[in-house]
Amino acid sequence: MEAARLHEYTDDMSEGLTIEVIDRPAVESSDDVIVEVEGAGWCQTDNHIIEGMWAEYVEQPLPMTLGHENAGTVVEMGPEVDLVEEGDPVICHPVQTCGTCRACRQGETMYCENQAFNGLTTDGGFAEYLHTNERAVIPLPSGVEPIDIAPHADAGITAYHAAKKAVDRLNPGDHAVVIGIGGLGHIGVQCLDAMSAAQITAVDLKDSALELAAEGGADHLVNPDDEDVRETVDSITDGDGATQVLDFVGADVTTEYAPDITAAGGDHHIIGYGGHIHESAQALVNGEFSYVGNIVGQYTELQELVALVEQGDVDLHTSRYELSEVNTVAERLEHREIDGRAVITP
Amino acid sequence: MEAARLHEYTDDMSEGLTIEVIDRPAVESSDDVIVEVEGAGWCQTDNHIIEGMWAEYVEQPLPMTLGHENAGTVVEMGPEVDLVEEGDPVICHPVQTCGTCRACRQGETMYCENQAFNGLTTDGGFAEYLHTNERAVIPLPSGVEPIDIAPHADAGITAYHAAKKAVDRLNPGDHAVVIGIGGLGHIGVQCLDAMSAAQITAVDLKDSALELAAEGGADHLVNPDDEDVRETVDSITDGDGATQVLDFVGADVTTEYAPDITAAGGDHHIIGYGGHIHESAQALVNGEFSYVGNIVGQYTELQELVALVEQGDVDLHTSRYELSEVNTVAERLEHREIDGRAVITP
Amino acid sequence: MEAARLHEYTDDMSEGLTIEVIDRPAVESSDDVIVEVEGAGWCQTDNHIIEGMWAEYVEQPLPMTLGHENAGTVVEMGPEVDLVEEGDPVICHPVQTCGTCRACRQGETMYCENQAFNGLTTDGGFAEYLHTNERAVIPLPSGVEPIDIAPHADAGITAYHAAKKAVDRLNPGDHAVVIGIGGLGHIGVQCLDAMSAAQITAVDLKDSALELAAEGGADHLVNPDDEDVRETVDSITDGDGATQVLDFVGADVTTEYAPDITAAGGDHHIIGYGGHIHESAQALVNGEFSYVGNIVGQYTELQELVALVEQGDVDLHTSRYELSEVNTVAERLEHREIDGRAVITP
Amino acid sequence: MEAARLHEYTDDMSEGLTIEVIDRPAVESSDDVIVEVEGAGWCQTDNHIIEGMWAEYVEQPLPMTLGHENAGTVVEMGPEVDLVEEGDPVICHPVQTCGTCRACRQGETMYCENQAFNGLTTDGGFAEYLHTNERAVIPLPSGVEPIDIAPHADAGITAYHAAKKAVDRLNPGDHAVVIGIGGLGHIGVQCLDAMSAAQITAVDLKDSALELAAEGGADHLVNPDDEDVRETVDSITDGDGATQVLDFVGADVTTEYAPDITAAGGDHHIIGYGGHIHESAQALVNGEFSYVGNIVGQYTELQELVALVEQGDVDLHTSRYELSEVNTVAERLEHREIDGRAVITP
Repeated sequence: MEAARLHEYTDDMSEGLTIEVIDRPAVESSDDVIVEVEGAGWCQTDNHIIEGMWAEYVEQPLPMTLGHENAGTVVEMGPEVDLVEEGDPVICHPVQTCGTCRACRQGETMYCENQAFNGLTTDGGFAEYLHTNERAVIPLPSGVEPIDIAPHADAGITAYHAAKKAVDRLNPGDHAVVIGIGGLGHIGVQCLDAMSAAQITAVDLKDSALELAAEGGADHLVNPDDEDVRETVDSITDGDGATQVLDFVGADVTTEYAPDITAAGGDHHIIGYGGHIHESAQALVNGEFSYVGNIVGQYTELQELVALVEQGDVDLHTSRYELSEVNTVAERLEHREIDGRAVITP
Repeated sequence: MEAARLHEYTDDMSEGLTIEVIDRPAVESSDDVIVEVEGAGWCQTDNHIIEGMWAEYVEQPLPMTLGHENAGTVVEMGPEVDLVEEGDPVICHPVQTCGTCRACRQGETMYCENQAFNGLTTDGGFAEYLHTNERAVIPLPSGVEPIDIAPHADAGITAYHAAKKAVDRLNPGDHAVVIGIGGLGHIGVQCLDAMSAAQITAVDLKDSALELAAEGGADHLVNPDDEDVRETVDSITDGDGATQVLDFVGADVTTEYAPDITAAGGDHHIIGYGGHIHESAQALVNGEFSYVGNIVGQYTELQELVALVEQGDVDLHTSRYELSEVNTVAERLEHREIDGRAVITP
Repeated sequence: MEAARLHEYTDDMSEGLTIEVIDRPAVESSDDVIVEVEGAGWCQTDNHIIEGMWAEYVEQPLPMTLGHENAGTVVEMGPEVDLVEEGDPVICHPVQTCGTCRACRQGETMYCENQAFNGLTTDGGFAEYLHTNERAVIPLPSGVEPIDIAPHADAGITAYHAAKKAVDRLNPGDHAVVIGIGGLGHIGVQCLDAMSAAQITAVDLKDSALELAAEGGADHLVNPDDEDVRETVDSITDGDGATQVLDFVGADVTTEYAPDITAAGGDHHIIGYGGHIHESAQALVNGEFSYVGNIVGQYTELQELVALVEQGDVDLHTSRYELSEVNTVAERLEHREIDGRAVITP
Repeated sequence: MEAARLHEYTDDMSEGLTIEVIDRPAVESSDDVIVEVEGAGWCQTDNHIIEGMWAEYVEQPLPMTLGHENAGTVVEMGPEVDLVEEGDPVICHPVQTCGTCRACRQGETMYCENQAFNGLTTDGGFAEYLHTNERAVIPLPSGVEPIDIAPHADAGITAYHAAKKAVDRLNPGDHAVVIGIGGLGHIGVQCLDAMSAAQITAVDLKDSALELAAEGGADHLVNPDDEDVRETVDSITDGDGATQVLDFVGADVTTEYAPDITAAGGDHHIIGYGGHIHESAQALVNGEFSYVGNIVGQYTELQELVALVEQGDVDLHTSRYELSEVNTVAERLEHREIDGRAVITP
C-alpha cells in the first residue's frame, strides 16, 4: 500500500515526507484492528515531528508513517475483538493502550506505560491502512462520516480535554479567554459554549479567525493588533480577570499575559507549545493562578466529543487533500495558508 | 503603646523597623475587635516587605507596623460582635474581609475585594495591641496558648492551604515531595502526614531540617548536596514521579525540577517565591503537569489547622523574642540562623 | 403598611392569610436594608407553611408575614452598608446570614447558624416593605426588572442549585431526567440546557408542561399517563439509565423510579417533598445510586442565576396578582390552576 | 480439584454448599490467569447468596463455586498476559472486566457491561484453583502473604471505597460516624484514620467490636444499648452532626438515624444492606443530606488498599478454616460467632 513516511528530521517542509509503497499492516495480537483510512487530519504537530521537536521526548523509529488523526472503516480484526466488526466506521484515538497498567485502569489514556502512538511512536494514518487495536477505536454513530470527523482524533480531543477541565471551574457570569482560534481553538470555543454558560472572549491576530470564533459562540473578540489584550480583558471582566484562559498558542508573549488577565484562583491552560513560560514565583503566589499543562484527551473524552458532533454542538472546518499532497499541506500550514483543518484522503 | 514600624524600604535588616510609641487602636466599626497581642510570628515575608518586594503588588501606607501572624486576647469589641467576648484568647487571620463581596461569599478570604491585611496593607501585630475585626478572629480551644499558635496565622495556613490542595489528589501509594523544610515546610510535612496516606519525600540542604521532616512524618529524606534529586525521586517512585510537589523555596533551581520529578497529571505547587519559572510550554504539554500558585489559606482553613493543633497532629517549633529584638530577628533569619519560628512577644 | 399575615395553621387555603396594617420595618443594625417590595413570588412552600408542615422543622413566631421570593427597590440602609444604595433595584435571597459562623465562611448560606428566613422564620415580602440585610441583597443589572425576577429568589435558585450539582457529573452524551415541570422544574430544564451538553428527558403528567420543557431545551418528553417511564428511559438511554435525575415532585411514586432509571453511580436528586422514600438498602448497593437531598441555593448561586437571566438563558413564566388576592392564589395553586409562577405585587 | 459449590438456594446454612470434585479450570482466552488459591475470605454476602438474595439482581448459573475474596499464586496464563508470571503471588479483584466498555475506560470496575464476578456470577475461590484474568489480578509486594490479605479483595475494598468517598469531604475537625464494626467496619475505621484527620465515632452493639474500633483509630465509642446514639452524636459534634456517616449495617434502625445525626450537606453511606430506608423527602430537603449507595471498590482502589496494608496502616483480623468447614463457617457467621474475618484455605 502507499504511505507517506518520515525518513529523517528536517526543517524543509517541501520534502518532509516520502510517498512509498510498503506492506499492508496485518493482525498480530488477539485485539488488533486494521482500519482502511478514509481521512487523516494534518496537524501542526506533524510539522513539529518532521522538525525533530519530539525526538527528545519519545522514541521514534524512522522511517515512520505519520498521521495521528485517523478515521475509516474496519477491515480486519484479531480473534478476541468484540467492540467492532468488519465494515464498521470508526474514529481512532491515536494511542493504543495496554489496558492493564494503573494509568489505563484510571482511564488516563495518555499516561499508559505501554502505549503506541500512531504517527508519533509507531506508523500512522497517512497510508491506505492503519494498524491499531480494540482499545483505540470508537464506532461512529450513523450520520457521522469518517472523513469529516477524523481531525477530532487529536485536534478535537485536545481542545475538548482542556475545555472540559476549564468548564469544571466556570460558573455562569464567569469569563473564559481563548487565545488562538486555529484548528484547535475554534473547537475549544464551541466546546466551552456547549458545556458552560460562561462569557467567552476570543483572541487572535486574524480577523477571519475571530469571525469563526463568533460563529462558534464567542461573546467578545480581541485582535492584539488593534487593542491591548490586558486592558480589554480587564474591562470586559470588571477588573476581575478571566477564571479560565485556554492558550492554544503557548508562545512567550501569550504565557506572559497570565498574571494580568487571569482571575485570582484561575488557570492559564497551556495547550499550544510555541514557546516558553518566564514568570516570577511571586506572581503565581500573589495572584494564586496556575499554569496548567494539557495533553491529548482520553479515549472517553473522544467518545464525549463524538456525542457533541452527533448533537450538532461542534462543527469542524476542513479541506481535503490527496496523499500525494502531504508536503504541500505541510508548507501551507507553515505559512498559515490552511483554512480550517487539512484532511488527507489516502 | 509600643510598636515596631517600617518607615522606608531598605535592604539593611539591622535597621528595618523602628520601635516607637503610637496611639492604641480604637473601635471604629460595629464589628471591630481589639486584641492585646501575646505572640506575633516573624516571617520571611517581613524581610521581603522591608526590602520593598511587595510594593509593586499592594499599596503600603508607610509608616506601618509590621506583623501578620498574631494571637492574643480580646480586650474590646464593636457593638455588633457576637463571635467573641472580652478575655477570649484568639488567633487572628491576617486578612480582615468585608463579608459582602463575591469572594467573601465563596469563602475565598484572600480574594476579598475590600480587604485589609495586617502588617502588609495596614498596621500589624508587632505592637501591644492589634486592630482587627470579627471576621478575622478565631477563638482558641482550651489548652491552646496564643503565643504558641501565633505563627500558624500565616506560615501555618499557607502550608496547610497547599497541603490541602495536594491531599485532594494523593491516594495511598502516591508520592509527595516537599522542597524546603523551614518554617512553612515542616508544617506542610505534618499536614500531609495527618491528612493522607501518601509517601512523603523531604528535600532540604540542611540535615537538621531533614531530621525535623522525619519527625513530622517524612518517609524519605534527600539532601541535594549529597544526591541527585531527580535520580532519587525517580528511584523512589519507580520512575513515575511524584503526584504532588510542594515547593516552599520557589527558586529557579527548584522550579526546574518539575518536568523531571512530577508525575503525569501532577502538580508542582509554588509556595515559596525566591525566584522564577523558566520552562518550555512543550514540557508542560508532554508531561501534563501544572505550576500551581498558592497564597495564604482561608479563614476556614485556619479553623481546620487549629483543629489539627488541638488534636496534636501539628507541632510548631518556636523561639521567643522581645519586641525590641525585631531587627535582630530579621538579621538572623537573613543568615538562616533562626531555628523553627521566631515569635515576638510584645 | 399593608401585609398578608399568617395567624394560625390551617388546611383551608381560602382563609390562610389575613391582610392587615402593620408598622413599616425600620433599620435596627448597621447592615440592615429596607426594600420596597415590587414583586413577591408565591410558592408551593407557602401553602405548606400555612398547613403547618414546617412547624416541626423551624421555629415560626405567629403572626408572621409570608413571602420568601422578593425583589424591589432599596429605600433605607444601616450606616455600614456599602453594597447597595437607596434606589437600587435588588433581588433578595430569602436568608439573612450572620457572616461569621463557619457555614457562612464556606458560602453555605442555608446552613448559617444564626439565620433569619423571610416568610419562614421572620416577616417576608407579601407586604409593602421588607426588612433584610446587606448579606441577602443582590443588585440587579440594568434591564432586569424586580417584578420579573422575584420568583428566582427561591424557586429559581432551588432549581439552579440542584441543576448545578447535576451538571458537575454530566458529560456530553449522558442523560438527565427531570421529573415535574412546574415552577421549579421548567427552570431546572433551562439551567441544565445552558450549562451542559447532556440529553434531557422531561417527565410530567400535563402535556402543556411538557411543551414548556421542550421550549426550555428538553430533548425527550414523557407523559406517564401515556407510556411507562421506566421502559422509556431504558430505551432512550440504551439500557444504561440516566446519570442524573432531578425529582421536583418527591412523591412515593417518583422516588420509586430510582433503582430502575438511575445509572450506576448516578444520583436521584430530591427537590420536591411530596412524599417518602421507601427503598431497600440492597438496591442502593447494587445500583450504587444515591438519593441526594437539595435545599434552597446559596447567595452566590443566586448571583449566577441572575447572570443566566441577564444573558437570556433562563426565562420565567409569571402571572401577576394584587396583595389582596393572596388567598385566591393559594387556592388556585392547590387546584393546579396557576400557569407559571404567581407574583404578588404589593 | 475440590470445590465448595452451591446447588440450590436455602436458608439452612448447615447444608448450603457441597464439597465435590470438579475439573480444574483451564486457560481459554489470551489474557486468562489461573490462580492456585491460598486464601478465600468468607463474607456475609456468601450467606446472602446461599439464601437467594442476589437472584433477582444478577444471573447465577447453578451449581456454582462460591468465594469472591481470593488470593494465591499464579500457575498458568494466557499467551498475551504481561502483568504477572507463573509463581507470582496475587490478590484477585472479584470482577473480571472486559477492558473495552465505557465503564472500564473510566476505571469503574463494578459497572463493566461484560463482567464476570467470581462466586456471584461465575465460579469463585472456595476451590483449589480459580479462573480469572489479567485485568483482575494485582501482584503482591514482598512481605504481604496471600492468605493474610485475601479478604481485602471484597470486604477490604468495599470498606475502602466508601471511606475514600467520605474522606474527600472530611476536613480536620469534622466528624465521621461508623456504624457496625464487623469485618468491613473495622477496616473502614482504619482507612478513615489513615487518610483523614477527622474525628471518628464508632457505633456497635458489641463492646469487643468497639475495642477493635478504638485500636483502629476511633476517637469516640458508642454502644446503642448503653446510650442514645442521636444524643451522643449531637453532643460530640456540638449539635452540628457528622459530615459523613458510614453505615455498614444498613438496617431500618440505622438508616433512620440519618436526619438526626448527619450534618447539613452530609452523607449517610449505605454499605451494609440488612434492611430498608423509610424517610420523608422533606427530611432530605430540610437537612440537605444524602443516602449514598456504595458497592465493591474499583481495581485501582484495591491497589491503593494493598499500599495501605504494605505500609502497615490497615490490619485485618482473620481466622483460618479448611475447605471442608465452609458450612460451619456459614452457620457461625449467622450466629455472630466469627471473630474478625474467616478465611478458607483450600
